[in-house]
Formats: sequence, C-alpha cells, structure tokens
Amino acid sequence: MNADVSGIHIASLSASQFATVYNLFSLVIASMVFTALYLLLSQGRVAPRYRNALVVSAIVCGIASYHYFRIFDNFKASYPAGDTVGAVHNLSNIEFNEAYRYVDWLLTVPLILVETIAVMALGRAASRSLLVKLVPASALMIVLGYPGEIAAGMGSRALWGTLSTIPFLYILYVLFIELTSSLDRQPHEVRTTIKRLRASLLALWCVYPVAYLFPIIGGEFFGGANGFVLRQAGYSIADILAKAAYGLVIYKVARIKSGLEDSRYDDDHDAPAPSRDRPGRAPATA
Amino acid sequence: MNADVSGIHIASLSASQFATVYNLFSLVIASMVFTALYLLLSQGRVAPRYRNALVVSAIVCGIASYHYFRIFDNFKASYPAGDTVGAVHNLSNIEFNEAYRYVDWLLTVPLILVETIAVMALGRAASRSLLVKLVPASALMIVLGYPGEIAAGMGSRALWGTLSTIPFLYILYVLFIELTSSLDRQPHEVRTTIKRLRASLLALWCVYPVAYLFPIIGGEFFGGANGFVLRQAGYSIADILAKAAYGLVIYKVARIKSGLEDSRYDDDHDAPAPSRDRPGRAPATA
Repeated sequence: MNADVSGIHIASLSASQFATVYNLFSLVIASMVFTALYLLLSQGRVAPRYRNALVVSAIVCGIASYHYFRIFDNFKASYPAGDTVGAVHNLSNIEFNEAYRYVDWLLTVPLILVETIAVMALGRAASRSLLVKLVPASALMIVLGYPGEIAAGMGSRALWGTLSTIPFLYILYVLFIELTSSLDRQPHEVRTTIKRLRASLLALWCVYPVAYLFPIIGGEFFGGANGFVLRQAGYSIADILAKAAYGLVIYKVARIKSGLEDSRYDDDHDAPAPSRDRPGRAPATA
Repeated sequence: MNADVSGIHIASLSASQFATVYNLFSLVIASMVFTALYLLLSQGRVAPRYRNALVVSAIVCGIASYHYFRIFDNFKASYPAGDTVGAVHNLSNIEFNEAYRYVDWLLTVPLILVETIAVMALGRAASRSLLVKLVPASALMIVLGYPGEIAAGMGSRALWGTLSTIPFLYILYVLFIELTSSLDRQPHEVRTTIKRLRASLLALWCVYPVAYLFPIIGGEFFGGANGFVLRQAGYSIADILAKAAYGLVIYKVARIKSGLEDSRYDDDHDAPAPSRDRPGRAPATA
C-alpha cells in the first residue's frame, strides 16, 4: 500500500491519536482567530507608528486561521471515524495535505519578520536594509523545506532539511550580528525587550526543525502514527507560540514604547485618586 | 459496546433529553455572541484605561462562542435523530468531544482572571505580580481536570479532580488573601464592587466542580443519560454566568470607576428635565 511504502501517509490513527490532533487543530484555530481580533481591537492603545506592527501581527494570525480551518477539515476527511466511537480511524481516499502548512509559512514567516522590524521603528532606511535581506531568505527557507516534507525517503528529507537550514542561519546572522548595531539607538527598557524578542524568535523557530526531524529519528516513539501525532503537535504548538503568543509580545513591546514616547499611552499606572477625596466633587456628592 | 463500558459515552438520549441539551447549547451561543458584541460596542462608555478589560471580556465570550458552535454541531452528529420525531437518539460513530470544553477553559479561564485584574487598575507592578501567579495556576487547574473527565473509572475521575483542586485553592488564596492588601487603595464604592466581583467569581466557579462530580455521585438522577444532561446543563449555565454575565459585571465596575474618575463618563444620573418643562419647547407641544 502506498501509504505504508512512502512513510509520509499514515495508514491509520487510533481514536485517541485522532482526538489529540483534532483538538490541537481546534485549539490553534481558537488561538489564532481571537489573537487576531484582540490585536486589531487594541490598536488604539499604541502610538500610531506601532499600529502597522499590530496589523501585520493580526494578518499573520488571520492567514494561519484560514489554513488551520482547511487543515482541520482536511484531517477529518483523511481520517474519518470508524464504525463505532473508539474505533480506529483509517486513511480514506483523501490525502492529508501537508502543503497547507508550507503555503501558510511561505506567507506568514516573512510577515513575522516584517512585524518584528516594524515594532523596532528603526527608521525607513535601516528597516528596508534589514527586510530586503530577511524576507527573501525566509521565503527560501520555507521553499527548500517542502520537498523534504513530502519526500518518501529519509535521505531526501535530510538533504532538503539541510539546504533549508542555510537561509535560516543567514537570518540568524542578520538578526544577531547586523541588528545589534541598530540596538544602541533604542531606549534602554526597549533594548532588553528587543533582545528577548529576538531570543524568543530563535527559540520558537527551533521547534519547527525539531518536529521536521521526527520521521528521521524514527523508532517506536518518533516514527509511524505516533510520530505523525508528535509532528502535528509540534508544528501546531510552534505556530501558536510563533504567531499568536509572539504577536502579543509585539503588542507588549509596542505598548511599552508608546508609553515611553507619549504619556497618553502610559495609562497602566495606579488609578487617580477617587472622587470622594477630590475637593471639586465632594460637595456635589455629599 | 465501548460506549457502555467506558461510562463516558452515553449510548442513547431520549428525544426530550436531546432537546434539552440542544436548546441549552443554542442559548449559550446566543448569550456569548451578543454579550461579546455588546461589550465591544460599549467601549466608548468607559474610560480608556478600562477598555482593555472590556475587550478581554469580549474575547472570552468570543472564544466560548467558537467552542459552542463546535459543540453544537458535534452533539448533532453524535446523537442524530431517530427514524421518527420523538424517537430515541442513539450514539453514532462520532464521539461527543468533551475536550472542546477543556480547550475553551484553557484559553478563557486565565483570560477571566486577566479581565478581573485589568478592571481593578491596580497599577502595572501589582497587576503583573498577581497575573504571574493566577494565570499559570488557572491553566494547571484545567489541564489537571481533563484526564479525569475522560477517564473510564470513577477512581481516576476523583483523583484528577482532587489534583485540579490544588491550583484552584491557590487561586482563591491569591484572590482572597494577597489581593486584600491592594483593595485599600481602591475607592470605597469600588472596593465593595470588587469584593462582590471576587465572591461571584468564587460562587460561579464552584458550579464546575459540582457538574464534574455528577458521574461520581451516580445513581438514577446523576448517572447515565440523565447525569449527562445535568452535567451539560451545569457546564453550560456555569459558562453563561462565568463569561457572559461576569463580563457584564466587569463592564458595570468599569462604568462606575470611569464615572468616579472622570465626570464625562458619569452620565447615569437623572435625565435632564424633560422637554415639556423647558420654556423654549413648551409652547410647541402644548
């Protein structure tokens, strides 16, 4: 059977394996949709210069929502319920389409770099110089990963995975070496935050290659149906962290910078003194 | 049949049991969707510093809406209509997925604590200090409850339920002991409201463990299909109260505090004198 030979199509999932993946996909949809809405609704809480970073973050979550709705429906069609509740879910005639993820990443990964640079507000020339390096490299990273994801053999998976790592390392070089010179112009409180932003981007993005490697590691735990569940779980959780949670960090950075630059956005302090202590109001309420 | 052995899948529901759960789910959807809309549409009626609490409350209702749409469709697929109107609804091959609730709670319960702290406007440091304790504890509470919900045996249900109670007690400790020191800085009118807010949070959250315990109590009334209906009703009504109704309480607190701090938001007084008393209009209407 083709499903067994290729190693990329899992012939069947147990009811609990199916339920795990199913519920994770639904969790991703809820996280992405409502993070996108929250970011759009919170635009007024940051200075105008940071609103584009919030809009781009919301768009990233929106694109991911679209793809996870597709992935969710595709998964149900590929592994329909058996005859009874608790029965094995066998692969149907519908392929489980991993390409949705790569199309998603092709659009969202460059945009995640755009939102990161946008929230730094480095100035037009510096931003442009970083983006012309980062955006094509990130698109190349995704494009080179895909042939490995759908390859039948583990040798091809390793080869394309290695090729995809080259633009990834270049992105890290730009973010950690070139960007460092721009950091000195940032306010002190923000410099720390941007360093954390960059470190968390690195940490989050490392989850993807790890999940990609599961089929190569193979064995009882990382191979077969179990490995499929782990890989889907890895990609799903990495997407929540790298898009929704990261978007909220971008919002937090934008809030802090807005508050530092304009006191109208610095409204997280203690509430003003209550009115009963205010001389002007006391007689009116007495 | 697996459905009977496990004790978690009810083999069949009577037409009236099905209709009760079905209509309750629809009630939850209507409550959540339109409370979310009302909260978003009312943002302009509270001071800017309280708008985030309203947005988060709306997001909580939105996330619940998404999950209840899923639960509603899932319930129809799990217990399809029999051959005639009024016939028994037998369990199909589609599992009734209780995990939707837990995924919902995993996202919304921490956010309910976020909206509660946000409306208090305690200042950045105090808020942060409370949230780093409350948010992880609330997520842990939900995660520990789930294995008990899907466990076949009542012993496992009791064990995981007990484990889940530990973070719940910690949350109560933080809300009732630690938060008390911050309360003194609140205006008198608000202090009373926040105490009520906290008490209602406790009262509402106690409905969940009671519904969770129904299968353990068992018997004619709390076990089997009847217990299933009661548990779904308990969770659904608790969700309406803890999310939609609680969101409206948050809005009320935000309104009161906005009015105390800024007279522009204090427009709930008696209406201006009716027009017939105004000299300019009196002749026209007479």
